[in-house]
Amino acid sequence: MTRPEEPGRQHAGHMTPEEFREHGKRVVDWIADYLVDVEKCPVRSPARPGEVRSALPAHAPERGADFDAVLADMERIVLPGITHWQHPNFFAYFPANASGPAILGDLLSAGLGVQGMVWATSPACTELETVVVDWLAELLGLPGHFRTDGAGGGVIQDSASSAVLVALLAALHRVRKRTGSAPRPVRYTMYVSGQTHSSVERAGRICGVGTDNVRIVDVDPNTLAMDPRQLERLISADIAAGAVPVFVCATIGTTSTTAIDPVRAIGEICRSHDVWLHVDAAYAGVAAICPEMRWINDGVAEYADSYASNAHKWLLTNFDCGLLWVADRQPLIGALSALPEYLRNTASESGEVIDYRDWQVPLGRRFRALKLWSVIRWYGAEGLRAHIRAGIAMADEFAALVSADPNFEVLDPHHFGLVCFRPLWTETDPERADELTMRLMESLNDSGDMFLSHTKVRGRVVLRMAIGAPATGMSHVRAAWSRIRAVRSQFA
Amino acid sequence: MTRPEEPGRQHAGHMTPEEFREHGKRVVDWIADYLVDVEKCPVRSPARPGEVRSALPAHAPERGADFDAVLADMERIVLPGITHWQHPNFFAYFPANASGPAILGDLLSAGLGVQGMVWATSPACTELETVVVDWLAELLGLPGHFRTDGAGGGVIQDSASSAVLVALLAALHRVRKRTGSAPRPVRYTMYVSGQTHSSVERAGRICGVGTDNVRIVDVDPNTLAMDPRQLERLISADIAAGAVPVFVCATIGTTSTTAIDPVRAIGEICRSHDVWLHVDAAYAGVAAICPEMRWINDGVAEYADSYASNAHKWLLTNFDCGLLWVADRQPLIGALSALPEYLRNTASESGEVIDYRDWQVPLGRRFRALKLWSVIRWYGAEGLRAHIRAGIAMADEFAALVSADPNFEVLDPHHFGLVCFRPLWTETDPERADELTMRLMESLNDSGDMFLSHTKVRGRVVLRMAIGAPATGMSHVRAAWSRIRAVRSQFA
Repeated sequence: MTRPEEPGRQHAGHMTPEEFREHGKRVVDWIADYLVDVEKCPVRSPARPGEVRSALPAHAPERGADFDAVLADMERIVLPGITHWQHPNFFAYFPANASGPAILGDLLSAGLGVQGMVWATSPACTELETVVVDWLAELLGLPGHFRTDGAGGGVIQDSASSAVLVALLAALHRVRKRTGSAPRPVRYTMYVSGQTHSSVERAGRICGVGTDNVRIVDVDPNTLAMDPRQLERLISADIAAGAVPVFVCATIGTTSTTAIDPVRAIGEICRSHDVWLHVDAAYAGVAAICPEMRWINDGVAEYADSYASNAHKWLLTNFDCGLLWVADRQPLIGALSALPEYLRNTASESGEVIDYRDWQVPLGRRFRALKLWSVIRWYGAEGLRAHIRAGIAMADEFAALVSADPNFEVLDPHHFGLVCFRPLWTETDPERADELTMRLMESLNDSGDMFLSHTKVRGRVVLRMAIGAPATGMSHVRAAWSRIRAVRSQFA
Repeated sequence: MTRPEEPGRQHAGHMTPEEFREHGKRVVDWIADYLVDVEKCPVRSPARPGEVRSALPAHAPERGADFDAVLADMERIVLPGITHWQHPNFFAYFPANASGPAILGDLLSAGLGVQGMVWATSPACTELETVVVDWLAELLGLPGHFRTDGAGGGVIQDSASSAVLVALLAALHRVRKRTGSAPRPVRYTMYVSGQTHSSVERAGRICGVGTDNVRIVDVDPNTLAMDPRQLERLISADIAAGAVPVFVCATIGTTSTTAIDPVRAIGEICRSHDVWLHVDAAYAGVAAICPEMRWINDGVAEYADSYASNAHKWLLTNFDCGLLWVADRQPLIGALSALPEYLRNTASESGEVIDYRDWQVPLGRRFRALKLWSVIRWYGAEGLRAHIRAGIAMADEFAALVSADPNFEVLDPHHFGLVCFRPLWTETDPERADELTMRLMESLNDSGDMFLSHTKVRGRVVLRMAIGAPATGMSHVRAAWSRIRAVRSQFA
């Protein structure tokens, strides 16, 4: 079916709606087949550096080709270079959930092809977003002031990295408004722990706060949670030294181990020093859709200025769908608004509408609310809760299996879908034991049967088993555990 | 077909591949029908503020529903709130091209659901991106050092706003490396013209350079192009005052009128003061795919440190697909890299691969190269050139029609798909004449028959007719011109 690249072939150019109908259905079939067959693929791509690139032509084609040529190359060139995040045996990093309704919501967005930079450029793009982020705030038990009918509101960002950047910009705007005519230069400081996601330090670098002014607060060596007493000491010392503390990031569910910072205690300190509190719950926050998990957000309602969680990790919505809520939208809009003449319009000037352009770094925006709306409609709140509960239950069962084996140790606690654990070796040198652990992981990952990642806790390598892909069932988790034990016994 | 929300209904949860196949084909049909019927819709949504929101439930559904419920609400609630960017009579802002192959490439990306943050998390996601941005650099006639096999390379960003932000971060990194142990604080300055896109000033705000240090260089009152002599004077004055000039943004095709800054003359000044030159060709840059348009990039090869153009405006690839090329990738990576333990991997440490995470603000990334690849494959270079040429030809013909009418005046020159023009009124008061022009535009936009936007040039309101939607043909342009004349005659 490939259109030959013969000389003189007339290419009318645009794909007609009828051609789209035909090719589109073939792509839908291709994806459905992929989802059926993904379990047969090696989880981690075996491709070597440069392998995909060298299979592609060095120059763009001069003549167009039929879409079947793309599908053929998807099989031949692209798939061998894919690490299959939707594979049931993908346990690395955190899950990047996709789901049928999310994919179709995204397809509707691409089909409409609208640009939601301001309300007027497609009112539905803005208003559906407002509705779904308000829905989700309620489903997660977040405080009323995070809803758009309060002082704050929610917005879809591409990622938690961008969410923390705009939160920091809002915090800087607020403090600059407060200090007003302070003689330049002011040295701003911000506070993270050694377990905080690297994007927060990066946001500090981007905003000009500078790495030197990002303080690393100690963590409790057992829980890996930020030590609020040291936070207080660092803030006080910075104030005494003439700096202006501007931003604290507390994490609910750190990337490394899903540790939970004491938000309430941190929040009290932030409040007393008038410092912005951002809560990064990128992975774990969506778990609060289950009432029995709401305890993770203790202190958020009282103290958080902003709160981020990603629907694209564990809430069945394909990347990108990062959610950011702010308690007060004014500093965010103040930090980011710009209104050139060519975007002036009566709706924006009426003050009756939201222009989400002022809530993010880019100007343009896709209609991302469609995929989140599709997911919430398809699953309903009860379906979303069932997915989160299934992940937690499987993680609990996995942890019980590992704990029961004297050759392994589990890092407690594990509240979500991630279990950190490590094999115990007869090797007594910690570095060589860590090497064995890494070799075990590489052996599992090289096999293509499953894919794990690692981190370091208290200086030692620990393996991360992140359970939460929609395709993963307990049979996959048990099979993974058998493989892990088998490889350990080969190495011991 | 809507699943009733009856008590006790079992919702299995995930959409099965077979359900996806069924619903997916219905969505494809829905989009194909939409593309057939879009011309019947009012171009600009007639929705009033709050209208879409009030049609949606105040709370998320507890029970899931069939996907047909989403499609029914698309018709009933969403479509009336859509401003149809793919409508043949959409002439506002700049086009936001979608196309069949782009939508299907995006669908493939959503179906795979991979996360391309580092090479190892899906080698094909990185390597296909490298290939297509290299292809496009060649197609646009950009210099070899912008290709990945040179010192630089290209990367897909969400937008030109994010592209200019990371370019500015790279510039700041380069100057800080150069000045090294300079005693703090350094005051950095950057340079735009009054016609530069607002995102550049915003990037300065975000990075902490600060609005006060963003210099506005005068433009030539006739061409609206940046005056290089005044740029030289401002840079010299800032240096004399102890500031460190760090960044100049030259624009090829300004958002307001598609004016072209003199890149070569600006570049010589940047070179002599060791200032980073970013070229923002967000809309117009892709026109260089036609050899006869390459003149717009005069000076880019010799002087530009970075160059941005968006495939999602005029190159048939749906948002987001902003392209950024840099002449030297090291300052960009230096500014943005971060490597937490949980992302360490042998491929990254080998130095043999690209980790695009270090080329952008967010950590995560979608497989956006698939849609650009699909577009280039389907159209071929000749199909892409035909689309650009068709837009320019229609704009030329529209401008000739307007010029021939003594009741209108065209703003010359117009090199691309945008024609700026205004009606001439018997009203001699400029403000009241501008009000009439705005009323004419609002009347046209309110009709739903077409959608224009406006800007101000030399203090006067000017209408912007941006031609370039794939569905637009000369018959639409001629009909739009008839409507414009008819409404003017009603108002005169």
